[in-house]
Amino acid sequence: MDIEKANETAVSRMMDARPVLTGVAAAREVIPGMRPDLILHAGPPIEWARMSGPLRGAIIGALLFEGLAKSEAEAAALAERGAVQFEPCHEHNAVGPMAGVTSASMQVYVVENVTHGNRAFCNLNEGYGKVLRYGAYSDEVLKKLRWMNDVLGPAIGAALAGTNGIDLRALIAEALHMADEGHNRNKAASLIFLKQLAPGLARVVQDQATLADILQFLGDNAIGALNPVMAACKAMADAGYGIEGSTIVSTMARNGTDFGIRVSGLPGRWFTAPAEVPVGLFFSGFSQADANPDIGDSAITETAGIGGFAMAGAPAIVTFVGGTPRDALNATLEMYEITAAEHKHFTLPVLDFRGTPTGIDIRKVVELGIAPRINTGIAHKNAGVGQVGAGLVRPPLAIFEAAVLAYAERYEL
Amino acid sequence: MDIEKANETAVSRMMDARPVLTGVAAAREVIPGMRPDLILHAGPPIEWARMSGPLRGAIIGALLFEGLAKSEAEAAALAERGAVQFEPCHEHNAVGPMAGVTSASMQVYVVENVTHGNRAFCNLNEGYGKVLRYGAYSDEVLKKLRWMNDVLGPAIGAALAGTNGIDLRALIAEALHMADEGHNRNKAASLIFLKQLAPGLARVVQDQATLADILQFLGDNAIGALNPVMAACKAMADAGYGIEGSTIVSTMARNGTDFGIRVSGLPGRWFTAPAEVPVGLFFSGFSQADANPDIGDSAITETAGIGGFAMAGAPAIVTFVGGTPRDALNATLEMYEITAAEHKHFTLPVLDFRGTPTGIDIRKVVELGIAPRINTGIAHKNAGVGQVGAGLVRPPLAIFEAAVLAYAERYEL
Repeated sequence: MDIEKANETAVSRMMDARPVLTGVAAAREVIPGMRPDLILHAGPPIEWARMSGPLRGAIIGALLFEGLAKSEAEAAALAERGAVQFEPCHEHNAVGPMAGVTSASMQVYVVENVTHGNRAFCNLNEGYGKVLRYGAYSDEVLKKLRWMNDVLGPAIGAALAGTNGIDLRALIAEALHMADEGHNRNKAASLIFLKQLAPGLARVVQDQATLADILQFLGDNAIGALNPVMAACKAMADAGYGIEGSTIVSTMARNGTDFGIRVSGLPGRWFTAPAEVPVGLFFSGFSQADANPDIGDSAITETAGIGGFAMAGAPAIVTFVGGTPRDALNATLEMYEITAAEHKHFTLPVLDFRGTPTGIDIRKVVELGIAPRINTGIAHKNAGVGQVGAGLVRPPLAIFEAAVLAYAERYEL
Repeated sequence: MDIEKANETAVSRMMDARPVLTGVAAAREVIPGMRPDLILHAGPPIEWARMSGPLRGAIIGALLFEGLAKSEAEAAALAERGAVQFEPCHEHNAVGPMAGVTSASMQVYVVENVTHGNRAFCNLNEGYGKVLRYGAYSDEVLKKLRWMNDVLGPAIGAALAGTNGIDLRALIAEALHMADEGHNRNKAASLIFLKQLAPGLARVVQDQATLADILQFLGDNAIGALNPVMAACKAMADAGYGIEGSTIVSTMARNGTDFGIRVSGLPGRWFTAPAEVPVGLFFSGFSQADANPDIGDSAITETAGIGGFAMAGAPAIVTFVGGTPRDALNATLEMYEITAAEHKHFTLPVLDFRGTPTGIDIRKVVELGIAPRINTGIAHKNAGVGQVGAGLVRPPLAIFEAAVLAYAERYEL
């Protein structure tokens, strides 16, 4: 077993992948295995009984959104008695930030890796504040979701139709040069996204007021590009998944209760442990005591070599997640210790255009005792509240140890 | 004479100024003293005989644009026999990048310093390539200028009407956190500008194809925000101009032949010397030998504390102007040596959010022998060619020495 060679293959495939946003469509039309009674969620598999507040809140919201329940109580009852199923986004070529809840009629971004042919999907971003992905499900939340599904999504889809799509690898590369890290800071990416969509939107949206609303919504949402960026990272990570003998991490994801990883050379298996609680900065009126354990598929960004791994180039992010610009620099430098490569396309000007640390090697994590660093939003631990802050977190080392053991067993080392 | 106090007043006024983009209008309608036979240009005063190629080229273009001449030869003859007058933008509350040529019917941005009430003006940005400001005047150049004047400018003006305008101080502050330096790198600023204008444009531009063209033009132009940013810097610098006893620089500007400065405590006087030739990176097919001496009012950005003074936060700019990210860092650090303050509103995350070096003190420049650093575009030395590269330049020290002598004389020190 030539592990180094297997890892080189896995990481090269991740870096060679070129994810292009080609469309927007209802989940049921494009996500493999999607069906009306299925709710996709972030992180590794989990049953209703063990779900955290924000994930439950988002599921309640999705059941109301789909018309499968008429009230919070009815939705919870439905979930409890197993009338709907729950499966990870990751097992359906999809990802979702925070709760990651995606139901059949929700519009999703369709991203194609034009190098290797695989596809990835992610729902639309709602912006900050009271939003489904953080477990809020008030009428206001659902109203916005409906507008996004009925107006925003189809407009973006129409604007993309008949074009070559948006090259998300190029978009991420450019945003990294504009002090984004691609996970919690997607300011530049969101503006590039707006710029690329705006002329097309102007051509397809007939009503001027509606067009103005769409441009305002996209322009106001500094985290709007996170979702297509996540789908791009998923498409890249999946391109490196399932390489015989590889010890590279292909998935890091959290459901609000457990942190789970999947490893390229051990396809189909999750390694999980209880998720840590992120430490960070809190919005006015909230504190660390309100924080839910780590949640969301957005750690796919770190998996692909950006996010917390690219913080050195995004010093302004410390105003959002805490720490100092030097901490941000050190975060990136530390991640070179546990990764297999420096990214070919994602570079950091401040490090003399060095490639971002890419391809987490479970052996290095365990040998050095250095867990990956993740930038993350922080959800309130109770259903229905929403985001309370943003900060930093690491996965438990135990899951990397378990993965190394499983690898040794599987490959008879 | 309490020079320190005078300088504190001058720099505080520069930093307290809050420039807001309130409209777009024809130069003849808003610029004080503008008239049909007047051409404004960048830098200190200069007669036709001494003008460089790119400035002559831009003037020829403006005379063709205004219909004052029908051919290049006719335009040159007009200029030679004194049938049109030339005056610095800076003497009309205006600025212009590179040649800075502004004629009576050209649309200009109107920026108001809402703190102190003064106004500043700047023409519209044409993008890269063959453009008037670099001395090109082909039919293609004039056609684009006409579209900008007839379609783009009025649309932006209409989008701004009835709003509170665009707070350019806030826009610059945000762009500096997104790895712009505000002079040669205005990628983020241009996208923020687009984002702020887009919904308003959607409301006022009836024709969908026209709207799409406008959004495409603004989105494609990574230097588009330079012109409103320059007007903002002019409004800030002018707020600190004319403070009795101050040794702070209020203007740095070049006409392609001479570099000129004006000093707060010596109002109404230019100190000039032959401009240096910028050193930098050249577009394919061009070299240092093609470079015209330093040209443009865009050094108003450095005068206001951004541009070359804020390079530490814009390491990616070295791909455009040359050098390394460390050089960019050192450029900013060096500028703290010759400035009076750290900016209250413009901060650099990479330096732990330290304010940018602001308010060049002619005494410090002369004492230390450190001239200000300027990022700049590089024009071809011949009329009609256009931009050939971008790089770095400093003003001649002699003009600061002359200013210090004049100051000593004026204040009898």
